[in-house]
Amino acid sequence: MGLEDPNMVNAGDMNGSGNLMDFLDEPFPDVGTYEDFHTIDWLREKSRDTDRHRKITSKSKESIWEFIKSLLDAWSGWVVMLLIGLLAGTLAGVIDLAVDWMTDLKEGVCLSAFWYSHEQCCWTSNETTFDDRDKCPQWQKWSELLVNQSEGASAYILNYFLYIMWALCFAFLAVSLVRVFAPYACGSGIPEIKTILSGFIIRGYLGKWTLLIKTVTLVLVVSSGLSLGKEGPLVHVACCCGNFFSSLFSKYSKNEGKRREVLSAAAAAGVSVAFGAPIGGVLFSLEEVSYYFPLKTLWRSFFAALVAAFTLRSINPFGNSRLVLFYVEYHTPWYMAELFPFILLGVFGGLWGTLFIRCNIAWCRRRKTTRLGKYPVLEVIVITAITAIIAYPNPYTRRSTSELISELFNDCGALESSQLCDYINDPNMTRPVDDIPDRPAGPGVYTAMWQLALALVFKIVITIFTFGMKIPSGLFIPSMAVGAMAGRMVGIGVEQLAYHHHDWIIFRNWCRPGADCVTPGLYAMVGAAACLGGVTRMTVSLVVIMFELTGGLEYIVPLMAAAVTSKWVADAFGKEGIYEAHIHLNGYPFLDVKDEFTHRTLATDVMRPRRGEAPLSVLTQDSMTVEDVETLIKETDYNGFPVVVSKDSERLIGFAQRRELILAIKNARQRQDGVVSNSIVYFTEDPPELPPNSPHPLKLRRILNLSPFTVTDHTPMETVVDIFRKLGLRQCLVTRSGRLLGIITKKDVLRHMAQMANQDPESIMFN
Amino acid sequence: MGLEDPNMVNAGDMNGSGNLMDFLDEPFPDVGTYEDFHTIDWLREKSRDTDRHRKITSKSKESIWEFIKSLLDAWSGWVVMLLIGLLAGTLAGVIDLAVDWMTDLKEGVCLSAFWYSHEQCCWTSNETTFDDRDKCPQWQKWSELLVNQSEGASAYILNYFLYIMWALCFAFLAVSLVRVFAPYACGSGIPEIKTILSGFIIRGYLGKWTLLIKTVTLVLVVSSGLSLGKEGPLVHVACCCGNFFSSLFSKYSKNEGKRREVLSAAAAAGVSVAFGAPIGGVLFSLEEVSYYFPLKTLWRSFFAALVAAFTLRSINPFGNSRLVLFYVEYHTPWYMAELFPFILLGVFGGLWGTLFIRCNIAWCRRRKTTRLGKYPVLEVIVITAITAIIAYPNPYTRRSTSELISELFNDCGALESSQLCDYINDPNMTRPVDDIPDRPAGPGVYTAMWQLALALVFKIVITIFTFGMKIPSGLFIPSMAVGAMAGRMVGIGVEQLAYHHHDWIIFRNWCRPGADCVTPGLYAMVGAAACLGGVTRMTVSLVVIMFELTGGLEYIVPLMAAAVTSKWVADAFGKEGIYEAHIHLNGYPFLDVKDEFTHRTLATDVMRPRRGEAPLSVLTQDSMTVEDVETLIKETDYNGFPVVVSKDSERLIGFAQRRELILAIKNARQRQDGVVSNSIVYFTEDPPELPPNSPHPLKLRRILNLSPFTVTDHTPMETVVDIFRKLGLRQCLVTRSGRLLGIITKKDVLRHMAQMANQDPESIMFN
Repeated sequence: MGLEDPNMVNAGDMNGSGNLMDFLDEPFPDVGTYEDFHTIDWLREKSRDTDRHRKITSKSKESIWEFIKSLLDAWSGWVVMLLIGLLAGTLAGVIDLAVDWMTDLKEGVCLSAFWYSHEQCCWTSNETTFDDRDKCPQWQKWSELLVNQSEGASAYILNYFLYIMWALCFAFLAVSLVRVFAPYACGSGIPEIKTILSGFIIRGYLGKWTLLIKTVTLVLVVSSGLSLGKEGPLVHVACCCGNFFSSLFSKYSKNEGKRREVLSAAAAAGVSVAFGAPIGGVLFSLEEVSYYFPLKTLWRSFFAALVAAFTLRSINPFGNSRLVLFYVEYHTPWYMAELFPFILLGVFGGLWGTLFIRCNIAWCRRRKTTRLGKYPVLEVIVITAITAIIAYPNPYTRRSTSELISELFNDCGALESSQLCDYINDPNMTRPVDDIPDRPAGPGVYTAMWQLALALVFKIVITIFTFGMKIPSGLFIPSMAVGAMAGRMVGIGVEQLAYHHHDWIIFRNWCRPGADCVTPGLYAMVGAAACLGGVTRMTVSLVVIMFELTGGLEYIVPLMAAAVTSKWVADAFGKEGIYEAHIHLNGYPFLDVKDEFTHRTLATDVMRPRRGEAPLSVLTQDSMTVEDVETLIKETDYNGFPVVVSKDSERLIGFAQRRELILAIKNARQRQDGVVSNSIVYFTEDPPELPPNSPHPLKLRRILNLSPFTVTDHTPMETVVDIFRKLGLRQCLVTRSGRLLGIITKKDVLRHMAQMANQDPESIMFN
Repeated sequence: MGLEDPNMVNAGDMNGSGNLMDFLDEPFPDVGTYEDFHTIDWLREKSRDTDRHRKITSKSKESIWEFIKSLLDAWSGWVVMLLIGLLAGTLAGVIDLAVDWMTDLKEGVCLSAFWYSHEQCCWTSNETTFDDRDKCPQWQKWSELLVNQSEGASAYILNYFLYIMWALCFAFLAVSLVRVFAPYACGSGIPEIKTILSGFIIRGYLGKWTLLIKTVTLVLVVSSGLSLGKEGPLVHVACCCGNFFSSLFSKYSKNEGKRREVLSAAAAAGVSVAFGAPIGGVLFSLEEVSYYFPLKTLWRSFFAALVAAFTLRSINPFGNSRLVLFYVEYHTPWYMAELFPFILLGVFGGLWGTLFIRCNIAWCRRRKTTRLGKYPVLEVIVITAITAIIAYPNPYTRRSTSELISELFNDCGALESSQLCDYINDPNMTRPVDDIPDRPAGPGVYTAMWQLALALVFKIVITIFTFGMKIPSGLFIPSMAVGAMAGRMVGIGVEQLAYHHHDWIIFRNWCRPGADCVTPGLYAMVGAAACLGGVTRMTVSLVVIMFELTGGLEYIVPLMAAAVTSKWVADAFGKEGIYEAHIHLNGYPFLDVKDEFTHRTLATDVMRPRRGEAPLSVLTQDSMTVEDVETLIKETDYNGFPVVVSKDSERLIGFAQRRELILAIKNARQRQDGVVSNSIVYFTEDPPELPPNSPHPLKLRRILNLSPFTVTDHTPMETVVDIFRKLGLRQCLVTRSGRLLGIITKKDVLRHMAQMANQDPESIMFN
């Protein structure tokens, strides 16, 4: 066993129980793992990884083969990143293509090849001219195919009916798949991923089934026309990929801390393919999702994000070498006076964010607490039906939301056939196509305006009810759509105002007649950024994502102005973004790095036991029997026990994990001769000589963590919170003048924080 | 005094001595400040800021005026950022303009207005056609002006002589100004800024004089033609701006922790204007410079970086709406086969980085230890003379280095008149100007090749001796120049190979005759990135800066391939980048977040006192007289003393700072009646009743830090290092079973790390 060799003991002690397996031939297989819905201990995971690394380094000097193995181990991080990038990019491409096809399937089918989407169908058709590129003989609406009518009331009703039927069909399939195969595949996944990355275990949340079902159902729900997006779930899908590949390498699969580094990078890859923004993805992971983000992870995340982006680009789902449908290039600069409407859009975004979070959380709480939650399939069916019935008549809600955003972002060029670009042209004018001056709006624009207004109201209401149902549902796209619609309307308003009143003081300096001074598409983009910012409270990553969409430094100032205003306005009504609100709703133990704890409480106010409570359950180093320990374990449900010199002196020796105590005793009883119920348990280094007929002692120093974290009872909670956050502790012991007084767990910290913020401390449910 | 009120004591205890002033009417003015060349305590600074914040929040409810004051306080962070951005952008613009003018002054003068640079002079001249835009009558070389000759040997010699004289003149002025007014203005400043940001005090390093002198001398040394750049010093200049503006707001001036947040953002603004890359600047600050970088700082840094970039753009120093001279746009994609030369360039960059760091550090060490260091002015004069003498005859070294880089990066368009673009054109060809196929090289290209080779060797050698002299000197530009020259040569080589052998297998697929397949400018850029990466070991920020220079996702893969290769190659020869090497050379106490500590040592191996040393100097809580304490302070030079219950029990009560003990005793002796040398010092809460004729006791609980940080003696050093890093501690006490054993300071940790890495532990000089 080698445990009596003092050097070995010393090495084994160094990190509590981390490298136990090296010395005991893995006697209990579950050592070092965690139970489901429990918090991990970051320091311990880090220690274990360092041990592993040390072992490999020392072995690598022994033989060439070990050296090669150590090289492979060092490279495995990059290999995992490469694989994640490739798979995430491929999945994103496949999802894009499938959504494209299935969305069009609701309206018609391609006769030449049924697997073509509307656009692909008409590409292959050579007969089309530019003007009617959307009308090609191969593409047939359902009414044309079934009753040979393309116009008229009955054709409209048939198409309408089939549209709703397809939508219901997709949604029903999606919700059934989720319920039967992978209940964790619902929602956007970002709140749970944030919690997992902060060091929490939710088994199966990133499993293979979740990956498969989420990918398939994502296609179904997006195609069904529900008011949701694929961007958030793509992050979840990418994290599932990350989890899958990290399970292939023991470096990551056996260490919860290292695994989370991979997941952080995977989240970056997910955003990278969702928005075609690799740098934005990395910053999103850094700012919004990750908890522990060392510089090495930054670099690897960047690599994964790039690989994912390039994979997606080689799949080329949109047929234009772009990563997203709504990439734009503007040709006109913006002017100082326009900052005012931009800031107004920011205020709108902030208000929308507040409204959405409040209403959505209220509705989700209702779903959790009332009978509503018992009929998830019915709920999805009803919402889908309502969405489809209201959406079909309005051209702006009938199409897919990302196409809508794309149209709203676009500048009106000369070749644009959209209703939004129905301006009255000056027939005498001959100017290059990309420099069109401001023109008066035509009837199409006015029609578009009220259709957009209706679509806006509809989107605002329906999104509140959609997000949180038991299907994959992202929030980025609906938020952006709300902002883009509002922004485009404001933009057209400003444009027409400037056209008709170019002699007003505010326009006189920059908007002469015949100049192209207002770009309504830019307003749409600013509005989208504002609304997305209001809901998620992203800042830098939001601006960088938008910057990567436009590809110019030029428009950063409008975007920033709107994003900052939106954040400030939304923060004035409540500090929580939608993801934090959902984390809170679910009671996950998430210690946000952004929250500042500023109350004047001390560790002594938070620690257990409180005044009047039973004293702390402790183990003594050399006076308890196996039976005593077993009784203590049975009677309490604490995750671990401090070990003290004796009940009287209460001087702290170390800390023993419950799980490992149980395993060690079970193991000793099975394998070690002479260990019986009244064997004495020794946590000391050298148990004293026992009389010959006394039972064999049980030596447990090897599972004792000899460096438990302690603070004094006078430590301000502010410092304690900081320590928990930065070191990722599970628990911390409280002492006064060297005497053990109590214990503070992560749950205690979170409950105290909730209490100080006038929230219900019982809402924190897990440890 | 109110100190007897238990609630008040409790509140006062909460953060050691942080909010002491509230209760004692600021009795000793220096409390809470640090001595020069000492490490700060991040936890304490954070506590103090929270106290301040709490005070303002509670006051803000009292009156409207206080509420407005609290709003102003909350906004002051943004105001500081705005001011930093404005000043840093302005200074960068002024430096660019001044360098431009003074560099040209070495060759000639503008007759129409002497304050015009060559380019500005010829802009205003209307007579020039495109071909001879560099030749305009208003611009006269010195020989033309003085002896009326523009050609011929004597004119050349006169120009040569005056070039050297101007260079010497500028360099002498610069080194004298630095020596007389601001010795801290020398070097790039980045190593010291890294150290300061990690929590070290160097008074005056970011002062107003340093700002002024560094700005002026930077212009002088760059104009003198020395092989150095302005990018690194610009970061120092921006940080000086940050320090200046933070001294205007008490929130930042009185808190060393908050001040460092501002400095991190200022560093981002500095890089933003140096490279015209706001996002790259933020990532540089995050990756390379900063130590404590909360998300709030990320967002503010981004704001400062953007303001700085826009300020610089409105100054428009290069007359092209670009932020930097070497902004480029390429028109040709790259091909997979080209990855091989790109990776070769990465290897070159890594080797150059290693060579440079080794030689430069050896030379700097020599300068520090031998008599060489006593003649800084002479050294600068000699190096300037050598540089000027060798540089003038070669057109690629005569011009300013950033112009050289700009030319090397540029793609050869049809209108390019440079020697590097002297290709043999096919007279039959009529193609658009921006899509020129590969052509055979003309004689100009061959001349350029050997001139570039000579310039490369010269730059490599001279930069080693230049960096580290007592003048402001940045390293980015010379490194990039070395890489760009090597890259351009490789690029031309590959291009000619592809042109002459387009039937080779490696070229056959992508490089048909008449195609534009190789862009030598891209090779130059990749080479520049590789060399910069090799020297500084930047990764993400480097790629993002380069991405912002080219403005396209397209070329990220070549840049990343080169940057990664270069980092790996350089890391294989030594982990330290040039900045860490200089920090190390100067013995600053810098605990790098990137270093991983993987040794199996325990806290007990590192703590003082070691075995055999005198026992730890401690204070007891209620048995020492004022004289005892004074003697202890006099006899030791420790920064603080643990306070224990009694010498026998050694149970820890708290920690008292030396500085505050001295101030408190001095203050008590002056102001408090009855405190004499044999007064007992009490650190307890309630001193016992004393006999009536005994001397008045001195109660010092208020300066006692009741929550000192402790670890057990069995804690692995790996964890201790982590704690020091993440919590920014100054010292940590070591206990075993509640008994005080020893103390570990940051210096001990650093010395131990140096020892484990087989370096000289005595090289860490400061505490």
